[in-house]
Amino acid sequence: MSWKQVAQSQRETLLSSMPIEWRLAPDEIGGRTKQRKIVDFIAKRVSSDTREITELPVSQLLQKLRQGDVTASEVLAAFAHRAALAHQLTHCLSEYHYVDAKRRAAVLDEQWRMHQKPVGPLHGLPVSLMDRFHVAGLRSACGYVSWLGIPRTGDDEGVLVERLRTLGAVILCKTNVPVSAMMGETDNNIMGFTMNPFNRMLSAGGACGGEGALIALRGSPIGFGTDIAGSVRIPAAFNGLCALKASEQRLPDSGIAAIFPGLPTAAGSVGMLASELEGIQIVFKALQDSSPWTYDNEILELPWRKEKHESILARRCDPVGIEANGRLVFGVLQSDDHVNPHPPIRLALQKVKQALLSCGYEIVPWRPPPQNEAVENLFRIFGSTGAQEIRNAIDASGEPPVAQMRPWYEQQDNEDISTSSFWQLCEARDKYRRDYAKYWRQMDSQTTSGRRVDGVIQPVAPYVAGHQNDPQYYAYSAVANILDVPAAVFPVSPGFSLAEMAFEEAQNRLASNEEEVKIQKNYRPVDAQNMPVGLQVLGRRLQEEQVLAMGQAVIEALNRTA
Amino acid sequence: MSWKQVAQSQRETLLSSMPIEWRLAPDEIGGRTKQRKIVDFIAKRVSSDTREITELPVSQLLQKLRQGDVTASEVLAAFAHRAALAHQLTHCLSEYHYVDAKRRAAVLDEQWRMHQKPVGPLHGLPVSLMDRFHVAGLRSACGYVSWLGIPRTGDDEGVLVERLRTLGAVILCKTNVPVSAMMGETDNNIMGFTMNPFNRMLSAGGACGGEGALIALRGSPIGFGTDIAGSVRIPAAFNGLCALKASEQRLPDSGIAAIFPGLPTAAGSVGMLASELEGIQIVFKALQDSSPWTYDNEILELPWRKEKHESILARRCDPVGIEANGRLVFGVLQSDDHVNPHPPIRLALQKVKQALLSCGYEIVPWRPPPQNEAVENLFRIFGSTGAQEIRNAIDASGEPPVAQMRPWYEQQDNEDISTSSFWQLCEARDKYRRDYAKYWRQMDSQTTSGRRVDGVIQPVAPYVAGHQNDPQYYAYSAVANILDVPAAVFPVSPGFSLAEMAFEEAQNRLASNEEEVKIQKNYRPVDAQNMPVGLQVLGRRLQEEQVLAMGQAVIEALNRTA
Repeated sequence: MSWKQVAQSQRETLLSSMPIEWRLAPDEIGGRTKQRKIVDFIAKRVSSDTREITELPVSQLLQKLRQGDVTASEVLAAFAHRAALAHQLTHCLSEYHYVDAKRRAAVLDEQWRMHQKPVGPLHGLPVSLMDRFHVAGLRSACGYVSWLGIPRTGDDEGVLVERLRTLGAVILCKTNVPVSAMMGETDNNIMGFTMNPFNRMLSAGGACGGEGALIALRGSPIGFGTDIAGSVRIPAAFNGLCALKASEQRLPDSGIAAIFPGLPTAAGSVGMLASELEGIQIVFKALQDSSPWTYDNEILELPWRKEKHESILARRCDPVGIEANGRLVFGVLQSDDHVNPHPPIRLALQKVKQALLSCGYEIVPWRPPPQNEAVENLFRIFGSTGAQEIRNAIDASGEPPVAQMRPWYEQQDNEDISTSSFWQLCEARDKYRRDYAKYWRQMDSQTTSGRRVDGVIQPVAPYVAGHQNDPQYYAYSAVANILDVPAAVFPVSPGFSLAEMAFEEAQNRLASNEEEVKIQKNYRPVDAQNMPVGLQVLGRRLQEEQVLAMGQAVIEALNRTA
Repeated sequence: MSWKQVAQSQRETLLSSMPIEWRLAPDEIGGRTKQRKIVDFIAKRVSSDTREITELPVSQLLQKLRQGDVTASEVLAAFAHRAALAHQLTHCLSEYHYVDAKRRAAVLDEQWRMHQKPVGPLHGLPVSLMDRFHVAGLRSACGYVSWLGIPRTGDDEGVLVERLRTLGAVILCKTNVPVSAMMGETDNNIMGFTMNPFNRMLSAGGACGGEGALIALRGSPIGFGTDIAGSVRIPAAFNGLCALKASEQRLPDSGIAAIFPGLPTAAGSVGMLASELEGIQIVFKALQDSSPWTYDNEILELPWRKEKHESILARRCDPVGIEANGRLVFGVLQSDDHVNPHPPIRLALQKVKQALLSCGYEIVPWRPPPQNEAVENLFRIFGSTGAQEIRNAIDASGEPPVAQMRPWYEQQDNEDISTSSFWQLCEARDKYRRDYAKYWRQMDSQTTSGRRVDGVIQPVAPYVAGHQNDPQYYAYSAVANILDVPAAVFPVSPGFSLAEMAFEEAQNRLASNEEEVKIQKNYRPVDAQNMPVGLQVLGRRLQEEQVLAMGQAVIEALNRTA
């Protein structure tokens, strides 16, 4: 079979595993130019029961499942329906696991009937997984046609999948990623380009673009992905979602397709996407409480630390008038001074700053050692073998590189550098970590309140969702990977109007370098208006509990001042 | 100056910093052939007050200091005297910090007088540091003549040194290491070969050979070193001491001389040596309780976990007759099946097994995936830049390589391999970690008691202290570095007699490979008799608390059955 046939077969297999009554007619799928925003279309297309179930916050959904107010099978069917519709309209899935998932949900329901109690804290919760995670019976193509041939077995499954099952979750599907799972937009020759549900002309981001589109369309309540330079956070920001990128060694990353086999440093970490941070927190806590380190020696023995979480919550803004002592202190990075963010991102930062100030939080300007240079160095680390793994995986099927990858693919001077050169890159990364830590400690002693800086608020990307094949810029997201710190993404809804953006655009600075010129050219106000905007808050290493609580504090401040 | 003059100047500077009344006459220093064992010689040479102070366990020493029964200056003088004698007889020091240390002790005493309480939990405790740790005013030569030119400043100091000072400790000296700090015996062209205090014809081990000899002679109550393949544990075993090699990211390793700058994996961790495990535990706990992660972002936020420590202590052997439920379960590795240990090591393992069994512990035979292959792979990782850093540092002064290093130094095919080859070595290391973890989990389910295996007892090295330039074999120690697990070393005193060893020698197996032939040839019963024998107990990753408690349990079992 040619690569085209292999890819087509995979597309057809996926579609044919969907109930026939959920299939859309070609005219319903429509051209994306005609029917750009599809969020409401899907919501209207499903039954009111399905709508009700799928639009519950995770906490309430789990409560209903626990109490038996709703069965695992009902919940699964509801999300499966929306996932099927979402995929047909955005290409957000890579694998649809509905048959197995139904069987699993039935078992859970049977258990509940027998014992009148849930199997575990995630009883009946459907979950979606970025395509990298191995699941028995499914492929982990990672966008490579040549990898479609390998269906995975139970032996390939990692601890995360096993833990999720043990806790009662139901794996519903795997989601689309770009070729190599290493780009900020999701495109490949199998499922194609994953579209943004708020404007199908635009990108859902990457590498977890499939997760982003799927969860925004409520085809899954919660999803997992890996984040090596922003792969979890960029799609969350582009699709108006919340996310947590955990530190390395906090969530199990065994049993995933290796993009850079053996890469001994900065190999990324696992993260989660959902509509609200509370849902992420509940599932993260359930996972940590289930002692994943017992099954995966690479995971740190750090159970959910309630006291850390509460120590931050206790320092949120109080009703007006209460004394401000002890309130949180945030650094705010407005620009990395290399590529200034587009107007909607700058507006979102202003909105957050105003909200935080009006709630009595302290904010300090944040100007750490140059992030862009450190991220350039990080990408040299990723490319230090000449990335032959990626080129070989593409070439193995004869498929052409997708547009976003073509310039890099065709570049012939990608070199497998010497180990001593590689160690120099690693040393530079270590130095950046030390320098950044030193900067943070310096800032700790320069706050007005005398308190230490709790977290840093900054863009995830310098733009909102853009067009297919727009140039990308990763410094804002990837710095968290260099530092190996947790980051929580939150939306600054509902985006900004043309008028707001026009005023802010007038403040644009002159581009100071070629990269900035390129990124400035991406800015198209008509497309950017009212698109989701996401920002992130970074914490110190392994402070997932604190970062989740800080994200919650920022969201509350935004709601209070909305 | 020629390298010889530079080295001689360093030796003279060190000697001249010792009080003249502590200098030994040439005939007292004697030839090492005549006066082999010097443990008693030093004890007799010092005053009874000095003897009393220096032979106290760390816990009692700290208590006396806290209560003001003894001053920091008195304690310092006592250890400084023995350290001066120890160095003259074994070449165990690299830097002698007495003048500054006296000043520091005087400040501590003044503080105590003013406030009638200690400055911190380590008030007045002298400590020694392997030469790699930077200390203001001192050099970190790491055995290289060319590195003698760089006296360090306060900016170079790392968090460990800062924490120790803040807790009240007094840095007395730095200790001798082999050229590059990467060999199992301690020899260089500056201070020369560090001799074993139990037989000066033999090696004190390496790389922390200086620590081993110094602490065995009670010239320091506690010392710190780094362990990349056994550097802390081998000297502990050779000199009858206890030791803890911590997991990576547990004890701060900033501010140390980089042997392999930028090495992104398996770069070793910090460990401690002392005469008793309790002393190590007290100092380790004090360090963790002082939140080193606040000052060094690479350190995990893991305060001393009392409940972990006590959960192991609660499962020690009870008075005879008490029900055995819940007692600890140990794997025992008798041989790695590649290089069988020498008779004294085998006898020590037997003694430990008998002691554990008679105390009601369960033991299971331990045969993990081949350690020697994994360790060969680890050494390829270290050598993957061709180790030009080491060769350059030697060549920079014109000094010749020491004997132990010569074969490697003269080998011309040390290659700076490609990064993709390097990643393959890293991938092999990761695979070994997974395989070992899988083996441990399998064994967990195969114990008679049904309990999980708590720790693994195995040799530190397949031999006791040997002669200068004997071939070395690191598989028994370095496996703990590959796995990044904590290990506690304990002595199996008082060594073994010729008769015991002869009987065991009759059980020697035929050497199965060239490496085993070489190591078997090292065995010299006359030299090995009554020499200290040390073994180690390995725990799971980051279980320092448990490993210290398991070491204590084994020592108690040995004492009970002695």
